[in-house]
Amino acid sequence: MTGPQEHAVVVGAGLAGSLTAVFLARRGYRVSVYERRPDPRTAGTAATGRSINLGLSARGMAALDEAGLLDAVLARGVPMRGRVVHRPDGTTRFQPYGVREHEILHSVLRDDLLRLLVDTASAHPDVSFHFGRTLTGLDRDKGTVEVADPAETVEADLIVGADGVFSAARRHLQHGLRADYAQEFLPWGYTELTIPAGPGGVPRVRLEALHVWPGEDALMVAHPNRDGSLTCSLFMAHEGPVSFAALRDRAAIHAFADAAFPDARELMPDLADELLAHPVGRLVTVRTAPWRHEDRVVLVGDAAHAVYPFFGQGMNAAFEDCLVLDACLGRHPDRGTALAAYEAARRPHTDVLADLSAANFTELRARVHRPGYVLAAAADRALSRLLPHRWVPLYTLVAHTTTPYADALARVRRQRRALAAAVTVGTAVAVLAARLSLRGRAC
Amino acid sequence: MTGPQEHAVVVGAGLAGSLTAVFLARRGYRVSVYERRPDPRTAGTAATGRSINLGLSARGMAALDEAGLLDAVLARGVPMRGRVVHRPDGTTRFQPYGVREHEILHSVLRDDLLRLLVDTASAHPDVSFHFGRTLTGLDRDKGTVEVADPAETVEADLIVGADGVFSAARRHLQHGLRADYAQEFLPWGYTELTIPAGPGGVPRVRLEALHVWPGEDALMVAHPNRDGSLTCSLFMAHEGPVSFAALRDRAAIHAFADAAFPDARELMPDLADELLAHPVGRLVTVRTAPWRHEDRVVLVGDAAHAVYPFFGQGMNAAFEDCLVLDACLGRHPDRGTALAAYEAARRPHTDVLADLSAANFTELRARVHRPGYVLAAAADRALSRLLPHRWVPLYTLVAHTTTPYADALARVRRQRRALAAAVTVGTAVAVLAARLSLRGRAC
Repeated sequence: MTGPQEHAVVVGAGLAGSLTAVFLARRGYRVSVYERRPDPRTAGTAATGRSINLGLSARGMAALDEAGLLDAVLARGVPMRGRVVHRPDGTTRFQPYGVREHEILHSVLRDDLLRLLVDTASAHPDVSFHFGRTLTGLDRDKGTVEVADPAETVEADLIVGADGVFSAARRHLQHGLRADYAQEFLPWGYTELTIPAGPGGVPRVRLEALHVWPGEDALMVAHPNRDGSLTCSLFMAHEGPVSFAALRDRAAIHAFADAAFPDARELMPDLADELLAHPVGRLVTVRTAPWRHEDRVVLVGDAAHAVYPFFGQGMNAAFEDCLVLDACLGRHPDRGTALAAYEAARRPHTDVLADLSAANFTELRARVHRPGYVLAAAADRALSRLLPHRWVPLYTLVAHTTTPYADALARVRRQRRALAAAVTVGTAVAVLAARLSLRGRAC
Repeated sequence: MTGPQEHAVVVGAGLAGSLTAVFLARRGYRVSVYERRPDPRTAGTAATGRSINLGLSARGMAALDEAGLLDAVLARGVPMRGRVVHRPDGTTRFQPYGVREHEILHSVLRDDLLRLLVDTASAHPDVSFHFGRTLTGLDRDKGTVEVADPAETVEADLIVGADGVFSAARRHLQHGLRADYAQEFLPWGYTELTIPAGPGGVPRVRLEALHVWPGEDALMVAHPNRDGSLTCSLFMAHEGPVSFAALRDRAAIHAFADAAFPDARELMPDLADELLAHPVGRLVTVRTAPWRHEDRVVLVGDAAHAVYPFFGQGMNAAFEDCLVLDACLGRHPDRGTALAAYEAARRPHTDVLADLSAANFTELRARVHRPGYVLAAAADRALSRLLPHRWVPLYTLVAHTTTPYADALARVRRQRRALAAAVTVGTAVAVLAARLSLRGRAC
């Protein structure tokens, strides 16, 4: 960059905000990051509000790689080579994530990753972090933000809103504009539970996998940790006969677990304590526009698009935002053009991701252990082995490639149409051949 | 009602709020209405923010009739017996609204109607209006509202949010809940223009009709007034080649009008002055849930559902809300049950109305003067005359009946399927008959 150094303010020092700070500093900006929570490196887990662990997949890895952070992140994670599906009768089935060596995910603790990102960004001489500073105002035309504790007005050439699903930056960005906005809550919530490591740190279940307990009324997934434990997310309705609201005492919790996850019960000695103590999180989809204002304000991550967690793509999509934004800033010297190109390149795809994530809720709830699903998944893998360049399962495209989400969906639809046509033609040829051979015999 | 008199606070003294006050007083409530604007009876048109005139149809009439106000309203309105469609070549075509005598609309000035409603409500000894008092807080659990000028906390047994599309009451009602919310702006806006009466108060066009100038890029409708003038709403894009933003001077306005509405131009001597002076309104669809909290807070009108104006149903749906809410309060002695029944009875239908209103935008923009549309509309009317109890056009069901919106749509879909089946069978019979007759001749 030539000319005087420009100043970027990033609102929110979460995963997307911290990675954005790294990219912006590399592009020559002086970067100030304002975050209302305390410093995650000193404040412990509670301060970040979420300790869930996450499945890092290709899109997230591509962004971290570009930032020079991938090796450090993978060293902190646990590879997940597939899904272990736990059936109600206590049996399990392993479904590999892909057919190729690199088609695996990595389980990382959100807080570990966040600390690494904040450390990396703040090591840059042009980046400063300001924790405990809440955004109280934003003037999209003047290019200023107001922050509290102490009250201060900060001028910025570029303001990046990375402050999550109920983004204050977005509210200021869109205030008075003809902004489209849709939020939709799932009637289900989630809470975190633990499968501790066994004696001597030996994992109680196969470690290098995502464990899934599907169910119509309650669903659980567990990500592995390096210490041999697994962190579970239990999903169920907020209210109703089978719900968090209904699990008010130990007897109710044990009866529920015996019925829903009989084999998980013995793996989770602290189940009742944790369920009674941990907060229940909410699940929301947010679609909105615009994501930007002229050359001064832009949104990334959950502030721009929130999705249900059932495709494991929330963090990956947020990191991909940072990567695409950085690429657009590199490609277009005019920043207004760059921000417009970024929104045009991303929004259609994150809207599709919202749909895919909602559809996967249905999958995970029930279909994962139904014969039809298992058969379809096996057929998907078999076709992918037979026609490696022609047939790529949707899950593979979403998790193991950086094909934009809408393009991935379009490709899978084309594949399915082509397969249906091939089956029709094949059947016709077979019937014809059979008839000819019958005739041959008759003559 | 037995027991001590209950207190209802209505937030917003617009059309829905004022009618709700009338109904609640009749049910025995003491009613306080708080409105941030000044009293519309003394403050003139500008104070209400909108002077548009509206097409009163069956639903609105049913609600006003129940409140004993219909005759007074109709005496202030102008009947509209159909639509006059103005074609680009300057010719016009009259399309009657229905086939039966009562199937007409009534054009009423919003401000006239509002003053009548406020007068009627405030004549009730148990109703008080408080103008210039803005809602600053609402506690949905305690049942209190805070209002400004002067600051005051008011206790209420029931709080009705009738404060319009960007309802503050709704924001407080839903704060922190898992509320679904979607707003979508049309890229088009609208402004108001006038076709003054001719010399001696003689209307310049057929008075007892809604006038429509369809167009891909701009669309105008005009409602008649009792003084022989018509109030027009011009709809077009906010920005772009043909847009409000592009009409910056008289030359541009006259060139636009000559091209888009050649016959309207001479009817509107103040066109350029008005277009340059009048604000451009925005068009938004809002769908949201919940509409209520326990037995204490409930939303009506635009606060609960905002729709585009292209089906002329915004006010009618709002009045129908008041009627249904009143009926639910009458039917269920437990108010929590009544409010739940009201939301369950209304929300699915106003969501369908939002879809129908958006679909009618497409109709009005272009199809009204295309031969296919005219033919289909004529076929609709002909079928309705031939099979008066079996075939009812969608427009008739929406505008001239109180059939709930979703039921109206479902009925029209059934009719179309039945017609398609009848045409198929009829064609088959005709073909068969023709063949038989040919064979007969061949023998």
